[in-house]
Amino acid sequence: MKRAPATDPRVIRSRASVLAAALELMSEKGIAGTTIEAVAARSGIAKTTIYRQWDNQQALALDAFATLLNTAPTPDTGTLRGDLLELIRGLAQALTASPAAALMPALIDAAERNPTFAAVHHQEAARRHKAASTALTRAVHRGELSPDADPADVIDLLAGPIFYRRYVSRGEVDETFADLVVDHVLTGLHARARHPHSAPRR
Amino acid sequence: MKRAPATDPRVIRSRASVLAAALELMSEKGIAGTTIEAVAARSGIAKTTIYRQWDNQQALALDAFATLLNTAPTPDTGTLRGDLLELIRGLAQALTASPAAALMPALIDAAERNPTFAAVHHQEAARRHKAASTALTRAVHRGELSPDADPADVIDLLAGPIFYRRYVSRGEVDETFADLVVDHVLTGLHARARHPHSAPRR
Repeated sequence: MKRAPATDPRVIRSRASVLAAALELMSEKGIAGTTIEAVAARSGIAKTTIYRQWDNQQALALDAFATLLNTAPTPDTGTLRGDLLELIRGLAQALTASPAAALMPALIDAAERNPTFAAVHHQEAARRHKAASTALTRAVHRGELSPDADPADVIDLLAGPIFYRRYVSRGEVDETFADLVVDHVLTGLHARARHPHSAPRR
Repeated sequence: MKRAPATDPRVIRSRASVLAAALELMSEKGIAGTTIEAVAARSGIAKTTIYRQWDNQQALALDAFATLLNTAPTPDTGTLRGDLLELIRGLAQALTASPAAALMPALIDAAERNPTFAAVHHQEAARRHKAASTALTRAVHRGELSPDADPADVIDLLAGPIFYRRYVSRGEVDETFADLVVDHVLTGLHARARHPHSAPRR
């Protein structure tokens, strides 16, 4: 739970140190290993000072996750393919290069059992999905995409392989793979729009 | 670490009770919450008895995960579509109805930081992927699938949306969605095989 926003520069600095230490520890040791004691040791900020800002370990973990939830890019390149390439390359980049990448499984795991973490997880996904569904809606208006395609399905078809390769099959998650996923999904969408009622040839 | 296989029926029974309690606790509380103390309390088996079989909490957690790693189905229906429908419907079913579903994020999270859990996670994925790549190889031999399609890419395109919908976007993971994913990916593969060098329209 967040207290009233601090204005004292010393409080702002110590708050930033605590959040940075908590993020480091979460990516090294998971949420369970990120105790207030461990954060105090890592940040050099006294436990009593930390408890003045956060009620408990969960409140601190939630605030630390929140600092990572940057607004997703909202590309508007003029074509669906251009927008999707930007979005999916951005996702591939975020899951390999950003500090959030190592924390995502901890957040997903915590979300399985804890409604507060589930809400943070949901908020993160919803922000990213909004950018994609805006791009899909524009493509429908431009006549580039059939209005029959369900945006939620398309988003799962696009984002799923990136997540799966990063966290399960553990292959290379690079621009080449991002582009392959986008082009594969677009080819499928266009072929299905031309022959909507045919089963795929074998 | 597993000790020599027990043959005493009492040991076999207590071992099964401990593993069942560990699985229950892992899906309720995650790996960190599944202490030997908690397993003893849940199973009614004395801590000393548990420590006779497992060196520590991690060894017990690994054995409990291993009991869930059933061999994936290896369908051979005669068509690629038939095989993939069986595999992907099976995956959707496993991620929604099986006790492993709630544990998968805990395993993925533990695998981010711990090489032993990473090995278990890798083994689970490799078993499932082998069934899929066998089906894809048969399809290439039958002339149903272009040999240019990389099986690792196809597997990520198929399994990714199922995982993503289950753990991130949290929509309905049912047979309808499994079939949509299979048909979408097959349509994309066939369209790209017919026009391998063309970018998608627009």
